[in-house]
Amino acid sequence: MNNRKLKIGIYVGSGYGGSELLRILLFHPNAEISFVTANEQAGKAVSEVHRNLVGLTDLKFIPAPEKTEQLSDLDCVFLALPHGQAMDVVPSLPNHVKAIDLSGDFRLRDQDVFEKHYKQQHTAMQLQSDFVYGLTETNREGVRHARLIANPGCFATATLLGLAPLVAHGSLAGRVIVDAKTGSSGSGAKAAANTHHPQRMNSFYAYKPFTHQHVPEIEQELDRVGDWTNELVFMTHSLPVARGIFASIYAELKNETTESKLNDLFTDFYRDSFFVRLVKGSPDINWVKTTNFCDIGFAARGNQVVVFSALDNLVKGAAGQAIQNMNLMFGLDEKTGLMLVGTNP
Amino acid sequence: MNNRKLKIGIYVGSGYGGSELLRILLFHPNAEISFVTANEQAGKAVSEVHRNLVGLTDLKFIPAPEKTEQLSDLDCVFLALPHGQAMDVVPSLPNHVKAIDLSGDFRLRDQDVFEKHYKQQHTAMQLQSDFVYGLTETNREGVRHARLIANPGCFATATLLGLAPLVAHGSLAGRVIVDAKTGSSGSGAKAAANTHHPQRMNSFYAYKPFTHQHVPEIEQELDRVGDWTNELVFMTHSLPVARGIFASIYAELKNETTESKLNDLFTDFYRDSFFVRLVKGSPDINWVKTTNFCDIGFAARGNQVVVFSALDNLVKGAAGQAIQNMNLMFGLDEKTGLMLVGTNP
Amino acid sequence: MNNRKLKIGIYVGSGYGGSELLRILLFHPNAEISFVTANEQAGKAVSEVHRNLVGLTDLKFIPAPEKTEQLSDLDCVFLALPHGQAMDVVPSLPNHVKAIDLSGDFRLRDQDVFEKHYKQQHTAMQLQSDFVYGLTETNREGVRHARLIANPGCFATATLLGLAPLVAHGSLAGRVIVDAKTGSSGSGAKAAANTHHPQRMNSFYAYKPFTHQHVPEIEQELDRVGDWTNELVFMTHSLPVARGIFASIYAELKNETTESKLNDLFTDFYRDSFFVRLVKGSPDINWVKTTNFCDIGFAARGNQVVVFSALDNLVKGAAGQAIQNMNLMFGLDEKTGLMLVGTNP
Amino acid sequence: MNNRKLKIGIYVGSGYGGSELLRILLFHPNAEISFVTANEQAGKAVSEVHRNLVGLTDLKFIPAPEKTEQLSDLDCVFLALPHGQAMDVVPSLPNHVKAIDLSGDFRLRDQDVFEKHYKQQHTAMQLQSDFVYGLTETNREGVRHARLIANPGCFATATLLGLAPLVAHGSLAGRVIVDAKTGSSGSGAKAAANTHHPQRMNSFYAYKPFTHQHVPEIEQELDRVGDWTNELVFMTHSLPVARGIFASIYAELKNETTESKLNDLFTDFYRDSFFVRLVKGSPDINWVKTTNFCDIGFAARGNQVVVFSALDNLVKGAAGQAIQNMNLMFGLDEKTGLMLVGTNP
Repeated sequence: MNNRKLKIGIYVGSGYGGSELLRILLFHPNAEISFVTANEQAGKAVSEVHRNLVGLTDLKFIPAPEKTEQLSDLDCVFLALPHGQAMDVVPSLPNHVKAIDLSGDFRLRDQDVFEKHYKQQHTAMQLQSDFVYGLTETNREGVRHARLIANPGCFATATLLGLAPLVAHGSLAGRVIVDAKTGSSGSGAKAAANTHHPQRMNSFYAYKPFTHQHVPEIEQELDRVGDWTNELVFMTHSLPVARGIFASIYAELKNETTESKLNDLFTDFYRDSFFVRLVKGSPDINWVKTTNFCDIGFAARGNQVVVFSALDNLVKGAAGQAIQNMNLMFGLDEKTGLMLVGTNP
Repeated sequence: MNNRKLKIGIYVGSGYGGSELLRILLFHPNAEISFVTANEQAGKAVSEVHRNLVGLTDLKFIPAPEKTEQLSDLDCVFLALPHGQAMDVVPSLPNHVKAIDLSGDFRLRDQDVFEKHYKQQHTAMQLQSDFVYGLTETNREGVRHARLIANPGCFATATLLGLAPLVAHGSLAGRVIVDAKTGSSGSGAKAAANTHHPQRMNSFYAYKPFTHQHVPEIEQELDRVGDWTNELVFMTHSLPVARGIFASIYAELKNETTESKLNDLFTDFYRDSFFVRLVKGSPDINWVKTTNFCDIGFAARGNQVVVFSALDNLVKGAAGQAIQNMNLMFGLDEKTGLMLVGTNP
Repeated sequence: MNNRKLKIGIYVGSGYGGSELLRILLFHPNAEISFVTANEQAGKAVSEVHRNLVGLTDLKFIPAPEKTEQLSDLDCVFLALPHGQAMDVVPSLPNHVKAIDLSGDFRLRDQDVFEKHYKQQHTAMQLQSDFVYGLTETNREGVRHARLIANPGCFATATLLGLAPLVAHGSLAGRVIVDAKTGSSGSGAKAAANTHHPQRMNSFYAYKPFTHQHVPEIEQELDRVGDWTNELVFMTHSLPVARGIFASIYAELKNETTESKLNDLFTDFYRDSFFVRLVKGSPDINWVKTTNFCDIGFAARGNQVVVFSALDNLVKGAAGQAIQNMNLMFGLDEKTGLMLVGTNP
Repeated sequence: MNNRKLKIGIYVGSGYGGSELLRILLFHPNAEISFVTANEQAGKAVSEVHRNLVGLTDLKFIPAPEKTEQLSDLDCVFLALPHGQAMDVVPSLPNHVKAIDLSGDFRLRDQDVFEKHYKQQHTAMQLQSDFVYGLTETNREGVRHARLIANPGCFATATLLGLAPLVAHGSLAGRVIVDAKTGSSGSGAKAAANTHHPQRMNSFYAYKPFTHQHVPEIEQELDRVGDWTNELVFMTHSLPVARGIFASIYAELKNETTESKLNDLFTDFYRDSFFVRLVKGSPDINWVKTTNFCDIGFAARGNQVVVFSALDNLVKGAAGQAIQNMNLMFGLDEKTGLMLVGTNP
């Protein structure tokens, strides 16, 4: 591409997904934000809502543009809307505008499965087949050529990055159990009972047993990556931290293995994937917080394997991955603007 | 008193004040709960809302009784209502029923001051003079003979317990600065923006500079305890813990002092006060959490003094102190039912 | 028993296990503490180390008694020593003194297994057969008649209470996976790298994959409770809270089941167990913190089952359960002194 | 300067100060790290100690160079050593090498004051007069021309940035009280009793009343900025967060003021200071964490003023400010490499 900066629209920048898109895109060397929308917050300065950005931007939130013409200058839009709203926006985008949807609207190929898990009707299912599931590490070529991206869910990203090498390699036997834990920012920027600080700070609990809406996108993508015929038991839990997902993935392999063999297999699979870091022993959400990395470790005993996967739900699990996809869609190095360095402590 | 158990009514037991009243009164040897009210939660089991109490009570929340006759069997009611609602309930109580109001409705003698700080009209000001300000340690005799108690605010309790000995002794010169900090449960059981876990867990900030509604009750009570003519600068801050208030109280004395002299003065003042513990160096909210203790420490340099005061905002700062007052009002040992032992860690 | 109070000795009361024994036993109506030992802290007041106990006890820590005669007045000792030290103390106890060991020294029947997992020699293995494994809920009669109790590990307690009904009922098919998480107090009262606050507060990570020392005691007890021939995959993780264990237990049953059937089975198994509370949906460590309760919930899909188990690692997982055992060993109601009420928040 | 990158040496990169120097300097466009030392960790990969840096650097820790010749290629060293060790290193630096000392060794002009507060002898006091106190915002020109910088303490930075405008303007009357609070990373990377997670997570307490070692550097610098003859009462407290300092500064002014007048005064003083952000109401440590910003707010009532100052103790309070100083010393824009963007949440 030439040196012209990509013109970006962000639909709903007032939530946590939008917050992270803004944090990254404001300093992305090849992008400039044309507009960022909000609902109740429209009219306010971005830095009044995201006070981390005071002194760093003069942008104001606007209401969502009503006419397609207003979008004609854009190169790319990010849709960080609540589930069920991207399906209203995408059909009205000009054809030349690429779109990356962070919601669940276009992740699932099967309308019935969508409606069962999201408990709403789908009104633009005809567009689904134009969407590419944007897990960069398993579908880099698909992403590069996509106009429309369905950005994976945070739990799905952690789970898929842990399982994909084993599925691609045909290693699995028997059911797979995923014990996944998320920080409180996964519930969004609006205060709610389950994120009320006095209780959450001392809490750990499970929720949505067996039925989390990320299950079908995990199985759909595993089936694309390899031959997935296993049973998936998927359990989500809430952690008393702000950011981070940790998945403990329990799998039985067809053959006995060792950590060294697993390391070879994962190293090979992620050879070109800067943002996947293989670590010795267990990863820790502390080392990936605020970054686009997914850290993966594992242990083996005979043919029993556990894979540990840790990422920041708002970055590699949402906004960071979305921008990683944007980079590829516009011919940029996938790391551009994403050298977000974590901190110790 | 004889062995009959006191019959207790709790107005609104679904908040955090009510939660702590229930935790303590359910196991109080001389009390039994006749009813506990709630609004939206009426009809639910108490243990469905306060899941710590599963297996410990079969009580259900009821709507507030509408007729005075329904209260005729009671000995005492606790009012843990939002500010402005106790003034509706108290006038309709039968004369023999004692009442302890945890809200700010009846703490202030001056109607204008009340209306300025609570931003609402007072509709039962004629009852104020029947209320005794229930800081047990500064007004034990008053409490013993009261029918109606205005239970002090949490910040007021921490501040008053730190300042009362100095004011009673006439030691102070010049303005007093109180830098007070509270845990998130001080904002109540309803989720709100300032208690949203992803932000609160890493936050510390000030709020309501100079204007906190506990200021006038502090000054009013100091004036009763001694000769208070000083300027009070009072600043409240939010801590990222669930429970606890810590007040750092900066005072100038008329004469030079030492920690040893301060210790004598405070020891003397609190000779009969089991729930005030004088500690060497600084107290720590960790050591008083879930208990009815207020820990106090101090340091001196010349005539500059700082007093540190730490308590649990929901216990000594609310429900525990209310029950301490009830004990005295009914001729019981003030410690009855209040041997709540803290934990390490 | 008559009204004489039991005379209790505590070996090492300066750690967190000792801290909780003291908190409970100081207020136990049928017990009095004859002595509590410490090493570096010997000579100090108990309340200087456990500052929650200021004002509540005048006890001082003493060095461990050197002569058996010094123990002749005792009824019971609690051994809250580091692993490997109870085996030195128990042989020298007078015969009439009962003992409850909170360490791992006498839990395992097989010397090789002990030495493999604890990485030290066992010097008093001849006494092991006199020890009863003290999980009250699975072995109440055994505990009642025991002189020596091996108190279960915290992870083992959470796991066994979740699995015992299924094993006793012969329901299980296939391997069982336990994804267990613990708060930082599980690492003890001494500061260490993995409990350094700046890192721990944002951390979640796995440790000791497959090899935790509680695995053999879990399998040994399951084998006693029923017919345990399954494979156990056991994984421990670290949570950024002070207190609490949460175990997610994944099991395959021989037959399809429902939550209602599971509820019947668990209700029946725990009919006499006050300290096990069955909850709808998931338990939460927030509701059991500082208490002796273990809250259990479950979910089912076909013959896939997940059992969630939550307890306080220092109470039901250590000191509380130890005192529950003491109560039974001396003919008391098992709840005596253990009505520790949790708090909301 | 030309495009040659500055060659940097870091003395002790294994602590938290070193961790942050590495995080920033590894991506600084005009700097390259020639070496980074460690003691016990010498020989290890930097990313083994700072696991946030896995995949981002191949640097290894080395022991401190023993010979001056080994330093001849350097442009600048950062000394992130424990107090008392920089005084051994600085005298042996080649004359052309600039140095920025993050410890307290060279901040104080008066040897007696140093020895009283740091409780050790000073062995290189003759060099003190060559050091410039590196609070960029109050001494930008001094920093530009310095060869040796004494980088301010974290508490001193927060306090000085809040007070300097008032002192420079001659506004103050009477004593000043600073109630300062710090996160746990201020205690360093080594585990210790006061940063033990199970206790710290629920703690708030005061320490070192009146005697903190940052007091003399605050007074010394205020005296340089203006006419400082006031009494300073300085109190430090510990917060249960990893990062952040919040100072509440209570001052009496000679004249009545308003928030608007204060805003004018501070705006004028910090006109050229990108890293000081004036905010409405109170700042919050949450909005400055991991950044080089100091956020300042204030409130006034008559001639009583409170200034609130919030920064990240490891960045603006240590490593970030050190690099800000380096930038100026080498003719770079002070923001270079320091556009560290905070996050919401």
